[in-house]
Amino acid sequence: MIAGSTVLLLLDLIGTFAFALNGALTALRATRLDIVGVVTLGMITALGGGTIRDVLLDSLPPATFLDWRYLVVAATGGAIAFFLGRHLDRLNGPINVLDAVGLALFAVTGAGKAVQLGFGPAQSVIVGAITAVGGGTIRDVLIGRVPSVLSSGLYAIPALMGATAAVVAGVFGADGLTVSVGAAVLCFVVRMAGVRYDLNAPFPPAAPDPGPGDAG
Amino acid sequence: MIAGSTVLLLLDLIGTFAFALNGALTALRATRLDIVGVVTLGMITALGGGTIRDVLLDSLPPATFLDWRYLVVAATGGAIAFFLGRHLDRLNGPINVLDAVGLALFAVTGAGKAVQLGFGPAQSVIVGAITAVGGGTIRDVLIGRVPSVLSSGLYAIPALMGATAAVVAGVFGADGLTVSVGAAVLCFVVRMAGVRYDLNAPFPPAAPDPGPGDAG
Amino acid sequence: MIAGSTVLLLLDLIGTFAFALNGALTALRATRLDIVGVVTLGMITALGGGTIRDVLLDSLPPATFLDWRYLVVAATGGAIAFFLGRHLDRLNGPINVLDAVGLALFAVTGAGKAVQLGFGPAQSVIVGAITAVGGGTIRDVLIGRVPSVLSSGLYAIPALMGATAAVVAGVFGADGLTVSVGAAVLCFVVRMAGVRYDLNAPFPPAAPDPGPGDAG
Repeated sequence: MIAGSTVLLLLDLIGTFAFALNGALTALRATRLDIVGVVTLGMITALGGGTIRDVLLDSLPPATFLDWRYLVVAATGGAIAFFLGRHLDRLNGPINVLDAVGLALFAVTGAGKAVQLGFGPAQSVIVGAITAVGGGTIRDVLIGRVPSVLSSGLYAIPALMGATAAVVAGVFGADGLTVSVGAAVLCFVVRMAGVRYDLNAPFPPAAPDPGPGDAG
Repeated sequence: MIAGSTVLLLLDLIGTFAFALNGALTALRATRLDIVGVVTLGMITALGGGTIRDVLLDSLPPATFLDWRYLVVAATGGAIAFFLGRHLDRLNGPINVLDAVGLALFAVTGAGKAVQLGFGPAQSVIVGAITAVGGGTIRDVLIGRVPSVLSSGLYAIPALMGATAAVVAGVFGADGLTVSVGAAVLCFVVRMAGVRYDLNAPFPPAAPDPGPGDAG
Repeated sequence: MIAGSTVLLLLDLIGTFAFALNGALTALRATRLDIVGVVTLGMITALGGGTIRDVLLDSLPPATFLDWRYLVVAATGGAIAFFLGRHLDRLNGPINVLDAVGLALFAVTGAGKAVQLGFGPAQSVIVGAITAVGGGTIRDVLIGRVPSVLSSGLYAIPALMGATAAVVAGVFGADGLTVSVGAAVLCFVVRMAGVRYDLNAPFPPAAPDPGPGDAG
C-alpha cells in the first residue's frame, strides 16, 4: 500500500512536469501571454485535471494543491517554458512524447486513486480520463480555443484505454506497480500511434470531414 | 421522504436524458466534433449543472457522478445524438420541448435537494436555477460561444420561477410530489411561451438592441 | 479571533460590492447581455474567486454562497451596473480604483482564510491570488475573452504581493487587523501604480511585444 502510493506519487510528479512544460508551450504558441499567463497556464494544465478528479472523488483539498511538490514541479515546468520557449519550440517531437507520457501517467494514477477510494469501475475509468485531459481542456478554454480533445486526434481514447486496463487488471487482483506500468504503456503506445499516423476518433456519420480551422 | 426521493430521482433521470440529447445536438450544430466531443458535451450538458449544485451544497461526490444511472442515461443521450444527429436535426420543435422539460425538472429537483439539505430559500432558488442552466453554460463555453442564457431568450427566468415556486410551496408545507410537478409545469409553460413568442429578458436601459452575432 | 473574523467579513463585503459593480460593467462593455447576464456576471466576478478558494481549502459550502449578505451585496452591485451602466461608464477612473480595492481586499482575506485554516505559506499565497483574480477570470471566459490577467497589465502580481505580505507578517506573529490593512494597501498601491504608468508583467524573452487585439 505504501509502496504503491509512493510509486503513484513519483509517476504523478513526472506527469505533472511534462504537462506543465507542454501546456505552457502550447499556450505560448497560441496567444500573447506575460510571465503570469505562461506560468499560470502551465500550472493549470498540470494541476487542473487532478483538481477536477479530487472534486469528483470528494478528496478535497486537492492533492495537487496540498502537496508543495506538485506546486513546485508545475511552476518549474511553466517557468522553463517561459524562459526557454523559443528554443524548446523546435523540439516538437520530444514534446509530443513528453505529453503522451503525462497523459498515460495521469490516466493510470487518476483511475488508481478512484479505485483506492472505493469507487466503481465506470467511475474510476471516467475519473482517470478526466485527470488526463482535464488540465489541457481548461487551458484551451482560457486561451480561447475549442479544446482539441473534443474535436480531433486520438487523445481521450488512449486515456480511456489506459484507465480501463488499470481498473480491469485491478479487479482481477493484479499487482499494483506492474499493472500501472503496463496500463500506462498501453495508453502511451496508442497515443503515439495516433500522433504518428494522424489517427482521429470517428466523426458523426455522413458529416463531411472539414479541414482544421472550422472550430469556434 | 423515500417516495419523494424516488420521484426526484425519476424526474432527474428524464431531465438528464433530455439535456444530454439536446446538448449534444446543439454542440454538433455549432462546431466540428468527433465522437468523444459529442458524447462528452452531451454528458457535460446533462451532468454539469448537478455537479456545480453538489459543489455548492457540499454534497460531494456529485450524485450525478456517483450513481451509474445518470452516467448511462447521459452517455446514451449523447450517443444517440452522435449516430442520429442528421435526422434529429430536423426535429427542432420536439427538441425544444424536450429541453424545456429538462430545464423545468432540473430547476425543481435542484431546489428541492437544497431544501432537503437545510439550505435557506434564497440559496435553494439560486441552486435550482444553476442546476438547470449550469450544464448548458459549460457546454457553450467549451464550444466557444457566449452562453445564450446570458444574452437572449427566456431561459434562466423560467428556471428561477420554477425553483421559487417549489421553495415557497415547500415553506408552506405543501406536499412534495404535487409541488414538484406544479412548479415544473410553471417553468415549462413560461419557457415554451418564451420560445413561441420569442420573448427576451430585459436589456439594459437605452442600450440599442443589436441583432445576433454581436457577441464575442 | 472573533474581531479578526468580523474585520475580514467587512473587508470581504466591500470587495464583493466593488467586484460585482466593476465586473458587470466590464461585461456590459464587452458583449450584448440581458439583465440575467449582467447580474449573473457581476455576481460571478464577485463570488467566483471565493468559491474557487473554498473548493481548494475544502471549506464547502462556499462562504460566499452560504452567507446571504454576500449574495445580496453582489446582486446589488450587478443590478446597479445594469440600470446605471450608461452613466457609470464615464467614471473609468473611480471604477479602476474600486476594482483595485476589491483586488487588494480579496487577496488579503483569501490568504488570511487559508492561514486560519492551517494551510502552508505557499498555499495561502496562491489561494489569496486566486481569490482576487478568479472571479474576473471566469467572467472573461464567459464573455469570450482571453482573461486579461494572463496577458497584460499588473494584476496578479500585486495580488501575489499583498497575499505574501499578509502571510509573511502572520508567520512573524503580527497583529491581524494591522497586517491585513497594511498588506491590502501594498497591493492597492502597486496595482494603481501599474494602471497609472501602464506597467506590464514581463513578456517572454525575445518575443515581440505585439499590440493589443492579438489574443484569441
